Amino acid sequence: MGIKVVRFEKENQEQWGVLSGEELLILENTYASLAEFLEKGIDEAKSIQAKVNVETIPFNEVTILSPVTKPARIICQGVNYSTHRSETGMEASRPPYNMIFSKADSSLSGAYSEIKRPPHVKLLDYELELGLVIGANISEAVEVSNENLHQYIAGLVIVNDVSARDVQLPQGQWLKGKSYRTFCPTGPYLYLLDKEELPFIHDLELNLWVNDELRQSANSSQLLYKPAETLSELSEVMDLSPGDLIVTGTGGGVALNLTREVNELMANLSIPYQQKLDLLVENQLRSGKYLKDGDTIRCEIKSADGVIDLGEQMNKIVMNKEKSLIDSK
Amino acid sequence: MGIKVVRFEKENQEQWGVLSGEELLILENTYASLAEFLEKGIDEAKSIQAKVNVETIPFNEVTILSPVTKPARIICQGVNYSTHRSETGMEASRPPYNMIFSKADSSLSGAYSEIKRPPHVKLLDYELELGLVIGANISEAVEVSNENLHQYIAGLVIVNDVSARDVQLPQGQWLKGKSYRTFCPTGPYLYLLDKEELPFIHDLELNLWVNDELRQSANSSQLLYKPAETLSELSEVMDLSPGDLIVTGTGGGVALNLTREVNELMANLSIPYQQKLDLLVENQLRSGKYLKDGDTIRCEIKSADGVIDLGEQMNKIVMNKEKSLIDSK
Repeated sequence: MGIKVVRFEKENQEQWGVLSGEELLILENTYASLAEFLEKGIDEAKSIQAKVNVETIPFNEVTILSPVTKPARIICQGVNYSTHRSETGMEASRPPYNMIFSKADSSLSGAYSEIKRPPHVKLLDYELELGLVIGANISEAVEVSNENLHQYIAGLVIVNDVSARDVQLPQGQWLKGKSYRTFCPTGPYLYLLDKEELPFIHDLELNLWVNDELRQSANSSQLLYKPAETLSELSEVMDLSPGDLIVTGTGGGVALNLTREVNELMANLSIPYQQKLDLLVENQLRSGKYLKDGDTIRCEIKSADGVIDLGEQMNKIVMNKEKSLIDSK
Repeated sequence: MGIKVVRFEKENQEQWGVLSGEELLILENTYASLAEFLEKGIDEAKSIQAKVNVETIPFNEVTILSPVTKPARIICQGVNYSTHRSETGMEASRPPYNMIFSKADSSLSGAYSEIKRPPHVKLLDYELELGLVIGANISEAVEVSNENLHQYIAGLVIVNDVSARDVQLPQGQWLKGKSYRTFCPTGPYLYLLDKEELPFIHDLELNLWVNDELRQSANSSQLLYKPAETLSELSEVMDLSPGDLIVTGTGGGVALNLTREVNELMANLSIPYQQKLDLLVENQLRSGKYLKDGDTIRCEIKSADGVIDLGEQMNKIVMNKEKSLIDSK
């Protein structure tokens, strides 16, 4: 069975542990990064459950940090579920290319951290996604298949690809609107996969609630571009290293809902930017589904039989009260 | 006067040096990354010219590596010169937002390295840009002005933001088409700026030739979103660390040339992807300006009086002969 690796903070000390029931078994060694843990800590983590006199602490008494650490490449797949393609006004079928973008690694935050809404953002949205943590150095084209996938993926994490739609969409390139600090709750733990568990990647249930209302419900079997072919393609373009994160796309049910007509307005080169932005905001706010300060997002990813369980995230939306140059303009 | 910091390879050893005329003064210490050099090596580099018995080697007898090292964030500004905006079919004036995207750090390559064209790429283009190397940790919103810019920028580099237009444009998100390995020649050296030289950032001449034909000629005074305001805005979104690279956009004269009509075709949601791609390729190849195997790109960035000189890049285009899964399809 896979193990659940937690990075946490207790009394201003960063530590690593393995979740066992409600208790964290604390690792004796500490690791400066996920890459270092993957290189040096896996044996310690795997053997800790058999050890006696292990120091423990209740899971709910520590601050849970993202198991993915900076620096990391966060590579994301866009519109990779048919249900999400439909709600964004696209053809539902598998598209002719794998859409790839990135998030800044400083958006990483813990599974129970607050999501800080920049005051100027009106269309704050959620995107529950299965995250793949890279376990190998990839520096040239490799042919990844379901048979050798375990050589490249160390484990799985829950990722919420939080998105400011009013920045992301009218500005064309998605990096900025998806990269604000706290916009990437990741964890609560890294589920280190056993080789035998690899096939579960293709049959995990993803559920997300906003204030206890179920909003997203998908299964990773519905991914249009699968993990193996995506890694093969990425390997032809860029390097990936242990501890990097591939975020595989979100299913239907986000707040964003675009019709063909709205997409045509957005793509119309004769409409000025500010007018597009105003149109988008007005059109989108009608549904009442966008995140508001005080809302709580909860999400889970697990197999139907519960054998693979990536845990639960619970994140509250608050307004970012730090000074802002944009908002003071 | 600023100093010219070179990262190079000699007999499979990575070393650092300071360029003095045609000679490299070799630093005694070595640094695993640009971040480490910026933290620990600046004093050694600054004092080496006054030292006696320094080991030297001719600049042209070593392999020049990118002074920016992995891991690094490479954050790019899009369409940030009026001349480039016009040739891409956009309004020439300063747009209402600063377009931001990223390149993979594995695209970094040396100033004299070959640029490897993936066999499927037909629209290979160049973009000469002024690169700003970050010199401070930025982890919250900061107000950067021309007065305190020296606290955030350690130095300058030449960057060629090589772009596969037939991947970049039809796929919408630019990361993939700009991130292939070797698509980011950087250097030949990091020009470490003296505080007094900072104002030169706003008056550097950028020139690029393909096979000795001058194609691009711009001045950094024409940047629409300036370095200080760009860093201020980025600081509100994401963290930046010493050794990260901000690429400020390219001037006119690239091979890409889009009319309003072509842009409307590309934005037309009724035209299928493959048809758009074919239209783009056919339309663009007519000019004969795209890079072909065997072409050589040369570029320079310097002040008109030559006081600030970021050196020269010279990169030859070759076909990437590594196995490709995409091309074998």
